[in-house]
Amino acid sequence: MNGPPTAPGSGTALLTDRYELTMVAAALADGTADRHCVFELFARRLPDGRRYGVVAGTGRLLEALDAFRFGPADLELLAHVVDPATLDWLRDYRFTGDVDGYPEGELYFPGSPILTVTGTFADAVILETLALSIYNHDCAIASAAARMVSAAAGRPMIEMGSRRTHEEAAVAAARAAYLAGFSATSNLAAGQRHGIPTAGTAAHAWILLHDDEISAFRSQVASMGTGTTLLVDTIDIRQGIENAIAAAGTDLFAIRIDSGDLGELARQAREQLDGLGATGTKIVLSGDLDEYALASLRAEPVDSYGVGTSVVTGSGAPTGGMVYKLVEVDGRPVAKRSASKESKGGRKSALRRYKPTGTAVEEVVFLAEHPLPAGPHDAVLPVPMVRGGKVVPEAVDLEGARERLRAALVSVPWEGLKLSRGEPAIPTTFHLEVSR
Amino acid sequence: MNGPPTAPGSGTALLTDRYELTMVAAALADGTADRHCVFELFARRLPDGRRYGVVAGTGRLLEALDAFRFGPADLELLAHVVDPATLDWLRDYRFTGDVDGYPEGELYFPGSPILTVTGTFADAVILETLALSIYNHDCAIASAAARMVSAAAGRPMIEMGSRRTHEEAAVAAARAAYLAGFSATSNLAAGQRHGIPTAGTAAHAWILLHDDEISAFRSQVASMGTGTTLLVDTIDIRQGIENAIAAAGTDLFAIRIDSGDLGELARQAREQLDGLGATGTKIVLSGDLDEYALASLRAEPVDSYGVGTSVVTGSGAPTGGMVYKLVEVDGRPVAKRSASKESKGGRKSALRRYKPTGTAVEEVVFLAEHPLPAGPHDAVLPVPMVRGGKVVPEAVDLEGARERLRAALVSVPWEGLKLSRGEPAIPTTFHLEVSR
Repeated sequence: MNGPPTAPGSGTALLTDRYELTMVAAALADGTADRHCVFELFARRLPDGRRYGVVAGTGRLLEALDAFRFGPADLELLAHVVDPATLDWLRDYRFTGDVDGYPEGELYFPGSPILTVTGTFADAVILETLALSIYNHDCAIASAAARMVSAAAGRPMIEMGSRRTHEEAAVAAARAAYLAGFSATSNLAAGQRHGIPTAGTAAHAWILLHDDEISAFRSQVASMGTGTTLLVDTIDIRQGIENAIAAAGTDLFAIRIDSGDLGELARQAREQLDGLGATGTKIVLSGDLDEYALASLRAEPVDSYGVGTSVVTGSGAPTGGMVYKLVEVDGRPVAKRSASKESKGGRKSALRRYKPTGTAVEEVVFLAEHPLPAGPHDAVLPVPMVRGGKVVPEAVDLEGARERLRAALVSVPWEGLKLSRGEPAIPTTFHLEVSR
Repeated sequence: MNGPPTAPGSGTALLTDRYELTMVAAALADGTADRHCVFELFARRLPDGRRYGVVAGTGRLLEALDAFRFGPADLELLAHVVDPATLDWLRDYRFTGDVDGYPEGELYFPGSPILTVTGTFADAVILETLALSIYNHDCAIASAAARMVSAAAGRPMIEMGSRRTHEEAAVAAARAAYLAGFSATSNLAAGQRHGIPTAGTAAHAWILLHDDEISAFRSQVASMGTGTTLLVDTIDIRQGIENAIAAAGTDLFAIRIDSGDLGELARQAREQLDGLGATGTKIVLSGDLDEYALASLRAEPVDSYGVGTSVVTGSGAPTGGMVYKLVEVDGRPVAKRSASKESKGGRKSALRRYKPTGTAVEEVVFLAEHPLPAGPHDAVLPVPMVRGGKVVPEAVDLEGARERLRAALVSVPWEGLKLSRGEPAIPTTFHLEVSR
């Protein structure tokens, strides 16, 4: 029953649900494949009590779109799924439609139309699973990471959660955390693929490998210089700090503490380092930190943090809860109408209203064919990302996304940055009456 | 700052933390790189209230080990991370050590030594991040999925959560869910790479694309035959079922309901289908199902389930909490000794004790150099997986893992299968006194 194993990354077109392709086959057969369709990707709600979401994954989706081709091995598998005419269609598939959306790094709220895909039914429906996978993952991580960046109140953070999540999700998580304001990642592939600064020096195993702690520290300093970070909590922290300064001198860049009562330990470590004359040696804390722990450490003498599990798992919300819904067919608004999970038909757009001071006050979602007049302080949110299958280059810009989010969080009313559970930071008003 | 983008899967060696390589560099420099080391991968505890964990990811790790090579693009990046001598060492890197572990599909408990990597320090330390990523993800999914399979009480389940998790994690999640007893997945790449049966027919968009529901159903039946599953809850379920049978006849294989009060709707649907003479038409339920919802549907007339979000996110426990610890250096047991996160040094093994009836009663973890006598009903758990860098072929067997888990869950005392929070299904006894 095992087919030929295919390496991840040989293409992105099979990273999808079977039903997307059986629908394409049936639509090619009945002539509906060419109907002009609009699909929208949005979150019905934010995770319980969260006050905002962060758009992330845009750059990854646009790159994946380029690799969305059905290769020979894919078509071989699909010969068991669809008919020969559909196989031919898939062989030639290139997305030729348009994509618009909130730029990466923008905030979103329940119902924000963060991605709009326009094209024939067949063109657009087969992107559903991949688009949702990327957005649901990356937005979940970036949204959690942004709260941690707020909680850290300016102290740099290294994302180091690769080991707690799927090995490829780890690379995307590093990217999303960086977008959200983390300074660096432990993940080397994220450095390679996304140009994110990487960091890391040594683990507890490094100390245990050696005959004693001070030999381990001396060797680390010999290899990495005094600009390194020594991990001091393997045996006894007090002795560890003494050994660290003995090995590296008072020029030592930093020590790291990865376990115990971190706040208390940071205070003691600062005092001890200062007493040893290492007043410039920084203190890095890591070990099961999340946004709440980070907030509780604000008053402590800490210089930076390493954050792992909580960021790569979305701190309790590992998925963004986004859906990809058909909202328009040949100009006609469509929507599911049964009891629950209702949605509103018609292609939407959105703008955000700001006070003259720059504080955001409201998000307004409206039907694209009935645009709302934008006031002098309002910003229309969706931007073009793909035109006729060609990616708009400005839509892929990780550094720009990072800056956009930083600015967006400054614009949010201060209650919107609280870690406690509450309402969305700004309300959303929907103008969706279809007047036909 | 953007480096050349590298496709996922061009190799697995950079899916790792930077500090693994800086440690290798320092160890090559100080001569400790060749020390004979034993690393153990284990979970300190199960997720809150869970009664067992399921070993998953073994097959994936062993395949990733084969691809764990530093290629030219990797080395180019690493030139900024390590010295030239280390680059040379990495260029030639092949894992040449041994791996032992609990076979895939076996149960594990807190402290179970589920993977043991033996080799030189440098050989073994650089596998840490990748091994943890794979095991933390796959075990989390399989452990949650196994509870769902128990809760479904024999009804087949399709894993359809690809859209709720990272696109590559989705493929691994499909594999882990299949290992745990799911029948199929919606994910085509999982079918391609792992030979898992794939399933799926149509989404709500299929109905909305058409002029009316019955045209959509007729077209679907024309393309997929009456052996298909028609999604009946887009507009009005009662009308939907009527349309489904009108379009497909009473030979229709199945209807699917994806929203609403699923238990109540299943009863009504069964009655309606029977009244229409479609007594053989099956009822598939999907929509935010987790193990608790599945358990609550046991008495309802349901034939199978589609499960998404909850399984791919580990149903509240998205990571396995596993660690990879150095426990032995040149025959000497080593362990971190500071206040918290202590672990026990020395290479370990384990056996599981059973009653003559086949019911598991206890897990015993002991030092490998002081093996415990195994009684006639005991089973030694770790098996050889890699010898001298060569994968033992029997260690990669997804179908075997699926069967192993099925048998293991039968062996657990019945309380161990309860969904409610509680103690591990069997206790673990540790015999770890080092007598030197």
